[in-house]
Order: sequence, then structure tokens, then C-alpha cells
Amino acid sequence: MKAVRYIETGRPPEIVDLPQPTPGPGEVLLRVAGAGVCHSDLHVLDHGIGIPGPFTLGHENTGWVAGLGAGATNVKEGDAVAVYGPWGCGACRTCQTSAENYCEHHASIPYYGGGLGKDGGMAEFMIVPSPRLLVPLAGLDPIKAAPLSDAALTPYHAIKSSLPLLSPDATVLVLGIGGLGHMAVQILQALSPARLIAGDIDETKLDHARKLGVEHCVNTGDFDAAKEEIRSIAGPRGITVAFDVVGAQSTMDLCSAVVGRASRICILGLAGGTFAYAANRPPYGCEVIIPYWGSRTELMEVTALANAGQIHAEVEAFPLEEAPSVYERLREGRIRGRAVLQP
Amino acid sequence: MKAVRYIETGRPPEIVDLPQPTPGPGEVLLRVAGAGVCHSDLHVLDHGIGIPGPFTLGHENTGWVAGLGAGATNVKEGDAVAVYGPWGCGACRTCQTSAENYCEHHASIPYYGGGLGKDGGMAEFMIVPSPRLLVPLAGLDPIKAAPLSDAALTPYHAIKSSLPLLSPDATVLVLGIGGLGHMAVQILQALSPARLIAGDIDETKLDHARKLGVEHCVNTGDFDAAKEEIRSIAGPRGITVAFDVVGAQSTMDLCSAVVGRASRICILGLAGGTFAYAANRPPYGCEVIIPYWGSRTELMEVTALANAGQIHAEVEAFPLEEAPSVYERLREGRIRGRAVLQP
Amino acid sequence: MKAVRYIETGRPPEIVDLPQPTPGPGEVLLRVAGAGVCHSDLHVLDHGIGIPGPFTLGHENTGWVAGLGAGATNVKEGDAVAVYGPWGCGACRTCQTSAENYCEHHASIPYYGGGLGKDGGMAEFMIVPSPRLLVPLAGLDPIKAAPLSDAALTPYHAIKSSLPLLSPDATVLVLGIGGLGHMAVQILQALSPARLIAGDIDETKLDHARKLGVEHCVNTGDFDAAKEEIRSIAGPRGITVAFDVVGAQSTMDLCSAVVGRASRICILGLAGGTFAYAANRPPYGCEVIIPYWGSRTELMEVTALANAGQIHAEVEAFPLEEAPSVYERLREGRIRGRAVLQP
Amino acid sequence: MKAVRYIETGRPPEIVDLPQPTPGPGEVLLRVAGAGVCHSDLHVLDHGIGIPGPFTLGHENTGWVAGLGAGATNVKEGDAVAVYGPWGCGACRTCQTSAENYCEHHASIPYYGGGLGKDGGMAEFMIVPSPRLLVPLAGLDPIKAAPLSDAALTPYHAIKSSLPLLSPDATVLVLGIGGLGHMAVQILQALSPARLIAGDIDETKLDHARKLGVEHCVNTGDFDAAKEEIRSIAGPRGITVAFDVVGAQSTMDLCSAVVGRASRICILGLAGGTFAYAANRPPYGCEVIIPYWGSRTELMEVTALANAGQIHAEVEAFPLEEAPSVYERLREGRIRGRAVLQP
Repeated sequence: MKAVRYIETGRPPEIVDLPQPTPGPGEVLLRVAGAGVCHSDLHVLDHGIGIPGPFTLGHENTGWVAGLGAGATNVKEGDAVAVYGPWGCGACRTCQTSAENYCEHHASIPYYGGGLGKDGGMAEFMIVPSPRLLVPLAGLDPIKAAPLSDAALTPYHAIKSSLPLLSPDATVLVLGIGGLGHMAVQILQALSPARLIAGDIDETKLDHARKLGVEHCVNTGDFDAAKEEIRSIAGPRGITVAFDVVGAQSTMDLCSAVVGRASRICILGLAGGTFAYAANRPPYGCEVIIPYWGSRTELMEVTALANAGQIHAEVEAFPLEEAPSVYERLREGRIRGRAVLQP
Repeated sequence: MKAVRYIETGRPPEIVDLPQPTPGPGEVLLRVAGAGVCHSDLHVLDHGIGIPGPFTLGHENTGWVAGLGAGATNVKEGDAVAVYGPWGCGACRTCQTSAENYCEHHASIPYYGGGLGKDGGMAEFMIVPSPRLLVPLAGLDPIKAAPLSDAALTPYHAIKSSLPLLSPDATVLVLGIGGLGHMAVQILQALSPARLIAGDIDETKLDHARKLGVEHCVNTGDFDAAKEEIRSIAGPRGITVAFDVVGAQSTMDLCSAVVGRASRICILGLAGGTFAYAANRPPYGCEVIIPYWGSRTELMEVTALANAGQIHAEVEAFPLEEAPSVYERLREGRIRGRAVLQP
Repeated sequence: MKAVRYIETGRPPEIVDLPQPTPGPGEVLLRVAGAGVCHSDLHVLDHGIGIPGPFTLGHENTGWVAGLGAGATNVKEGDAVAVYGPWGCGACRTCQTSAENYCEHHASIPYYGGGLGKDGGMAEFMIVPSPRLLVPLAGLDPIKAAPLSDAALTPYHAIKSSLPLLSPDATVLVLGIGGLGHMAVQILQALSPARLIAGDIDETKLDHARKLGVEHCVNTGDFDAAKEEIRSIAGPRGITVAFDVVGAQSTMDLCSAVVGRASRICILGLAGGTFAYAANRPPYGCEVIIPYWGSRTELMEVTALANAGQIHAEVEAFPLEEAPSVYERLREGRIRGRAVLQP
Repeated sequence: MKAVRYIETGRPPEIVDLPQPTPGPGEVLLRVAGAGVCHSDLHVLDHGIGIPGPFTLGHENTGWVAGLGAGATNVKEGDAVAVYGPWGCGACRTCQTSAENYCEHHASIPYYGGGLGKDGGMAEFMIVPSPRLLVPLAGLDPIKAAPLSDAALTPYHAIKSSLPLLSPDATVLVLGIGGLGHMAVQILQALSPARLIAGDIDETKLDHARKLGVEHCVNTGDFDAAKEEIRSIAGPRGITVAFDVVGAQSTMDLCSAVVGRASRICILGLAGGTFAYAANRPPYGCEVIIPYWGSRTELMEVTALANAGQIHAEVEAFPLEEAPSVYERLREGRIRGRAVLQP
């Protein structure tokens, strides 16, 4: 079968021929339906992740069960599923609550997941270590569902843990209305009555937010003007929860400047910023967190949201063979929504 | 191997010879260390649980891993473990959070767990369906640890879900200081600063509570006197959380009569009462719940508490062959603490 | 000034002339804008509430600040406000969290609130004991806002405390789509992505639910058919949260029959039922609660929801003088939505 | 009456004669029993707080109600009370939940509280703006109770908000076993079964922790050695919650280096550090917060803890006239426990 592979740091992805894998005991063989093309893959290709290659890329995958190793239960051949991405030990207390994204033994596991150290979904078939890592699609189009397991799950996790603060009299800010951000906006609209502000430096992204029904859209190109505009919308209480889906120094600083006391800042984007936290800067009682991905049951909830029509990812599909050029387009900012490879 | 078995409703347990079982794919073979003798077994023997026999009894088990089926990972031969008792589907959202006690598919599973429809731990060996159902003992004496998986886990689950109410200015009531109750008292002392009242109709049980350090011990033999005494200790706010570890009509009614507004009643004992809830009886805002057992991660936490020396079960060990007479003694109230069979 | 008064149990309300009251130290004089006409007033008139009359009726009030007693701060003359209804001691721990609905000293306070033992809002002016009991309307029409303080606040409180269970893969049931129920439906739509089922025995009420956008509307006239239909919509997990806004024996029994494990039943209506809770009936892990009204900060949140256009009460206004005939129409079921008296 | 006053930045405190104040409408006159001498007063004296003097110092106060302004209710003359320190607007949503420490209008209030912009408790009498700011001592010695309102309340607030993470299998770290730290240790022992590690650079402080029953005491003088020792005690999961009661750069960095994923760092000390938060440094899913003081109901809970004998502050009492020399001793590190002025 054909597979798109990371070879070593600094080399472009290569399309190679591999034998179709066989599931070992407890494992599941998946015929891949779609594999999302993610910005973080560029980071893998350019800088590595501390794990030697080669391995097949693709950490945002859907497919159909095509074979079961001995002892693998709870799924059957033909089931359409999403693959939960962050693969933990499965046994520690945290993994047992389904939050493998925070596996207590991650330091001793030599991979992050399929496509991140182990072979991922940019191939006709992939091996998933356990049925526990599969979530039924329940009627969702597998191509459109591919981005759910990362681009939707990551903001969902951050939003869900912030819900107690998101009451009707709160104001919530999303900075960066790209792949994850446009999902964050929809998830917030589905889960919370709080007043929503969307910020971006790109007017086409803000137009996207407007189309999604966001009333307050702020161009954050001018830091001080954006700060004043956001503060003026939020009123004296300030922003209650800010989601920084960019993670640059300027977006972190903007969050810090607009939140009120007893607030929360969730940083989802990893554009290189470092958040500086000192006494009363941001105001006292502000929780700051950089979460990672989400839990298995949160992926179930994301799938339920998509099935209920409350969220949808914008997807553009490409054949597997075009992976190298799709990555180039992604690097140049010429992908609209999420690109998904279809083996 | 010898095994203590439920044959059919109304018959006493029988000791029979069975071949040593072999673990299938994904399963674990356990050499049993201890199997707790529980009051609910008498209910199984006398009335059945709607599941045809025969099956080996014993749902409160510890042991050592003695064999692994294909695909069974995360444990290795020789590991000392407690067996988590309520076996769910392992795949639904609730099981994935580790709360198999509330499995969403329980209605379509033809057993409750080992010793409850499937072969349990009153035998030299037992089969556990998956490594996910095993919790490492981490140095605990396997005989003394056997009761943790039910007599401690059940009150722990109820207490944990009540913790937000158990602040230092609250008053908490435990009715019934027997097997589960004496664990409830210790768990409350470890987890909460709330003022604690223990109630029982048996002065020897109240002496047990006193020995455990409980200052307020109330004999509940006289309903009205007990009600007044409890109210007077609790003050105008009333009891904030009541744990009814008996579940008789009188204990339920007593809980109802002493809790305040915005309170909680957890009914753990199943002595046949029916709680009647009408407008302002109990006072408005009282949550009433009959929980069931606990989750896998809660069993991990119980094990950690025991390892830290913060809780301990009183245990009396017997050889497997004495099971019939131990059940008779249990029925006659002549077991002190928890009886554990040692194969 | 004219006032609509409860005289004694069994007598119809009377319109009498009273001197305009003067605010004492710490109190606020309110010029009443609207006073909701509530079913519970009929209960007061017919059966009393254990508090001797006469007192002015009206516990769902809005108005404008018209005078301040010495030491009353935080509001100023002319402010448009809603009156928080359940008046507690203001000093106990629970009142200090704003939940005066669960005041710890309620047993020693000789009234429930204005219109419930103390003079209420069915008069040109009323006295509110403290500015803490006033919530700014912030632009809401005072007539349309009158029902917010009870018909919206009561379900809001119940829904808010159930939010952790209302994830996207849950199913929620509202029984009774009348005054409180039509608010419950809107609040659920604003706060939760859970699948919503509305049940009523009256097709016009179900039509109201359909107009509000509820997809699953079930006529509960036939208990067994309704039970099957609800179970079939909810799937094997069953209903996760049920709001019984009727509180009759049949609606309580229906909730008990359709919820799953680890669920919640909130009983808001007080039509005389008694909920029977025994082992596994309803299924294990079901929390049952009869809450009471809501907190001051929850009324702030309700007001914010209304200001954001996410909820609206259907209101019909009448002059104060028509109170006796309005109560008769209410008794005969001939009021659509909420009647509000306008002094 | 004599009063210890801040005059202007850079000047030592002065003892001056002032007329006894009279309570205005809604206010309470307090005869002061004890006023804690806090490190933050040195910051006030040396650097100011942006509020012009003069004002009487003392923000950690107890006393007896000595007079009531018009409209002041809920307390009566002679009541022994603690004064809640952070004075908010009392009306915003946050103040209404009793969390005036996070008042939404703090930016428009020209003081932080008594002793911090308004006249505080280092005088024979002080004015408290409202009875809501008083908590009954219920039998506590007013001198020993003075530190509860800051030295105990501040860590209590931080610990309470961290409780969901503090399960029996978690490890918790307290850095800095001084005034607030020795209270933090006791509060953790009362509220949580988690394994506790105390860290300090001063062996006498660590001895204090040992006397309080802490098993794991780590000298943090050598950063790398301390990091390894803490990691080794905590195991692969790492520290779950870290309380940095110092707030220096080195203590912040140490917390960052020892916490695990899905953890929490609460910074209570304000020794000038800036916490740097970047991707996976500290590990993903770590919540970082600098909280401020605590809420009114938390002070009630602290008082209940002290009354139950579960926490106690070490106190040394001095006459008011010695204030200047007590501040000098405090500055030189020659106060053991908490100094309290007794007018």
C-alpha cells in the first residue's frame, strides 16, 4: 500500500510502498477513510519531535475496521470510526478516565500517537493499538469527520473545562479564527450563552466568524485599539474566558490585557509565545492553562455535536498522492478550512 | 480446583471440583488470594439475581496474575491486584470514564460481575475479562485488601460525590456502623473536615465508632429521641449530608427528618426501605441518591488511602472449605468485621 | 394606594386602600411596574401558608426605585429593577452566597418573601427589605420582565445545577410546557447541546414547544406509550436529566421509568405527587431533587439571558383592579402565558 | 483614641491620637481586639499602594461590635467577630457570591479595605462599612483568631479551589512554611488525603513542618537536588498541586519543574517572581493561578476549622504602642509566627 512518511528532520514527506500491516493481539486494523493535514505536521517535518523516523504521517484519522487482533473486542469489521489521537498507556489512573492526552506515563512511551512516532493514517491501512481508541462515527461522513479528532477535539476540551465560568453574563474571547478557531466558535455557540467576541488580524477570517453568526468581531492588527474595543464590549467585568488559538506573544499579551479578575486564559495555539504571569498581571484570580488535545469521551461528545448538526468542519479532500503538494499549499497559507487526504 | 458455587435459588452454596480455567484472548487468569464474604451473597443464595446458575461466588477479590490471554497487556505474571467488581461493557462513554458501575449497556449484559452471574473469586483461580479490571495492590496485604473493592469502594464513591458539600461548617451523618459503615467513617475522617455523627441501634457498633475517634455517637433505637439529638448537634442548618448505610424504612425516615435545605442523602444499604420524597419533605433542595458500587479509578484511590494507612478493614480469614459455615455465621450475625476466604 | 390582599384562608383576594409605605433604615421603596399572577397564589388564597394575613399579594415583581431608607446603598432612585423573591436572613453562609432560597434560618423567619407573608407587589408601591434583593433590568421592558423572577428563575436554578450532566450525547426531558416549562425549554436550548424531549398531555402546549424549536414532542396522555416513545428516542442510555415541571404522581412515575443510571430528576411542579425511591427504581445512581426557586446571582444570569434575547416570557398585562377576575381566569385555565398586573 | 497610621510612602508608621469614629448609616463600629502585623504592611509603608494617606494600618482584625449605624442589621453590640478584609462594592454578581476579593468594580473603588486605603484595625475602634463583612468568632479567642482573616484565609481559598485534584493518590507541595505556609500545611491535612511535601530553604521552618506532622520535608536551598528529591517522592505522575507561598523566581521555577500533566500551581507569595508559561513548560494541562485573599464564606469555613481545633495560628501579642518596633522586628525576621497588636 502507499503511505506518506516522515523520513527524517528537514526532509519533505515521501510517498513509499509498504506491505499492508497485520493487527497483533488486542490491535485493530483500520482501512483509512480520511487523514487530516495539520499544521503541526509541518513542525514534525521541519524540526522533528524527538522520535526517529521513518513513520507514516497522519494523526487526525477516520476509517473502517478491517481486521481484529486476538482479544480485540467491542468493535466489528466494517464499523466506521474516528481514531482518538493521543495514545497513552491505557492503564494509569488518568488514561482510565479516558484522558490519555494527560497519560501519567507519557515520558516512558516512545511515541505520541499514530502519525506522531507510530505509523499514522496517511496510508490505505493503519494499525490502532486498541479498540478503546476508536469512536463510532454513527452516520457522519468519514471525510468530513476526519478533522473532528483534533481541530474540534482540542478546542472542545478547553471549552468544556471552562464551562463553569461561561454563564450568560460572561464575555468570552476567541483569538484566531482558523482551523481550530472556527470550530471553537461553533462549540461555544452550542455549549454556552456567554457573549462571544472573535478576534483575528485577517478580515477574511473575521468574515468567517461573521458568517457563523458572531456579532462582535474585532480586528486585532492594532494591539491598543483591539484592547480598547474588547474592553469596551466586555464592560467593567472584563473578559471572563479567553481562548488564544494562536499562541503568539502578541495574542497572549492581548488576552492578559483584557481579562478580568477570577477569569481564565486557555492557550491552544503554539506560535512560540511565552506567557508572563506576575502579581495582578493578568488580574488576580486568572487561571492560565495550555491544555493538550482532549479525552476519549470528549471525542465522543464532539462526534455527538457533529451528528446533531451543531458543528461542522470545512473540508477539502485530496488524493493521497498529492500529499507533498498539499503540504506546500498548507505552508503557503493556500488551504481553506481543513485539507483531508483520501487514500 | 475447589470452588464455592451458587447452584440455584434457595440452595446452600456447594463446594465442587472444577478444572482450572484458561484465559481467552484479552483475559487474565488470577490466582486468588482472598475473597470477601458479603451479605449480598446471602441475597443471591436466597433469592437469586435473575441469572441462572451455577456460578462460583465471590465478588470482592484479590490475587496474583497467573496467566495472560492473547492481547492482554498492562499487567504481568505475579502482579498482586484487587479485582474491580462491577464488570460493564468497557466501551460505552461511562465505562470509558472508568465508571463501569453505571455502564450504559448493563441491560444487555447477562451478568453483574465475577461472583454475580460469572465465576467469582471463591476458588483457587478465576478469570478476569480484561486487565482494565485490575488495580495494583502496591504492597497491601492481599487478605486485608480484599474488602476494599466493595466494603470500602461503595462508601468511597458516595462520599467522593458529596465532597463539595462537606465543608468545615457542615455536619455529616453515617447511619449503620457495620462493614461498609466503619469504612465510611474512616473515609470521611480522611477526606473531610465536617463534623461527624455516627448512628446505630447497636451499642457495640457505636463503640466501634468511638474507637475510630467519632465524638458524636447517637443510638438511633428511639426514633424521636435520635432525631432531636442529631438536630441539636447539627444546629439550625441541619445535617448537610447523610449516608444511610442500612436502607431500612426507619433509617431513611430518620435521614429525611434531620437534613437541612440544600443537603444530600446517599442510601447505600438495601434493607428494603422506600424513600418518600414530596414537596419540602425532606426540606427543599435535598438531593437523594441510591448509588451503586464505585468506579475503577475510585478503587485506585481507595487502594492509595489504604496504602497511606488512612483506612483499614477489620478482617477475619477462613479456609475456602469452611465457606458454608461462614455463610451460616454471617447470617446469624456472628462475623466480626469482614470474613475473607483464603483458597 | 390600591393593593390586592390576602385576608384569610378561603376568602377571595380583596382590593383595599392602604397608605403609601415609607422605607425604614436599610430598606428600599419600589414603585411597582408589574406583578406576575402565579398559580401558587391560588394555593395561598385557598389553603394559606401558615402565616396570618392580611398581606398584599404578588411575589414576581419589577419596578423602579422610589425611595431609600437610611443606610440603603448600591441603588438610586429611578433604577428599574426585578425583585428577588425568596427573602432570607441575608447573613447565614448560604444567604451570603446569594442563595437565600435555601436560607439556613428560614425556620425562624415569619415570612417567605414579599407577597408570601410580607406585603408584595400587587400595589402601587412596595417595600423591599434590602438593596441586595434587587437586580437591575438593564433595558428590559419591566412588564415582560416580571415573570423572570419566578417562572424563569425556578427552572434556571434546576437546569444550572444539572449542567455537568447535560453534555452533547445526553438526552433531556421536560414534562409540562406551561408557564415554567416553556421557560425551561428555552433555557435548555440556550445552555445545553443535549437532545431535548418535551412532554405534555395537552397538544396546544406541545405545539408551543414545537414553535420554540423542539424536535421531539411526546404526548404523555398514555403512560405506557409515552414511556416507550421516550425510551426509544433516548436509546439504551435512557434520559440523563428529567425536569418534572408538573409534579403529579404520573409525571414523577414517568420520569422514574425513563431515566438511565447516573441520571438526575428535578421536580419543579408541586401537583401533589410523592416520589418513591427504592433500590434500582429509578436505576442506580439517579439523583432526585425538589429544588426551590433560585439564587440572587442566578436571577442576574436570567436577566442577562433575557437581555441577550435568548429567552422571553409570554405575557398578558391587566390593570390592578382586575386582579379578582384574573385569578378566576387563572383558576379556570383561561390565561395564556403569564398574566401580569400593572398598577 | 490611639492609632497606628500610614502617613506617606517611605515614612515609618506613626502613632497618633484620633477621635473615636461614629458609624454612619449601614456601618458598624468595632472595638478592636487584635490586629495582625503583616509583611504586606511593610510593602505599604515602603512603596505605597497607589492610595494617598494618611490611614490607619491593620487589615487582619478581630473585635466586638460597639455600635450600629442606621439600617445595620444581623449583628448586635458585644458580638465577637472577625473582619473580612477585601472590601468590594457588595453589589456586583461576584460580591453577591461573597467573593469580594474579586469584586468586578474594584477598579472604581478607591481602597482595598480597612488598613489598605481606609482606616484599619490598629486602633481602639474601627468602622466596618457593612455587617456583611463580619464573621462571628463563635467562641474563638479574638487574639488568636486575628490571623485567620488573612494568613489562614488566603491559603484556604487556594486550597479549596484545588480540592478536586487533591485525591488520595495525588502529591501536593507547599513551598515556604512561614506565616501563610504553616496554615496551608494544616489546612491541607484537614481537607485532603493527598501525600504532602513541605519545602523551605530554612531548616527551622522545615522543623515547624515536621512538628505539624509532615513526613516529607525538603530543603530547597539547592534547586537541582530539591527538584530530584521532590520528583522522586512524587513518582512518575509528578506533583499534582503546588502552592508557592513565596513567589520568588526560584520557587516558581521549582514548581514548574516538578508538576506533572493536568496539574495546578497556585502562587500565593509575592516575592517578585514572574512565572513563564510556554508549550509543555510546565507540562501540558497545568493550571497556573495567582489568587487573591478569599471570600466571606471561606472565612466562615476557616473560622469553623479553627473552632474544631483543626488549625491554629501561632500568635505573639504586643501592645499597640509597640507597633513601630514590632514592624522593625518583622522586617528583621525576628517575629515567630504572627505578631498581633492588642489595643
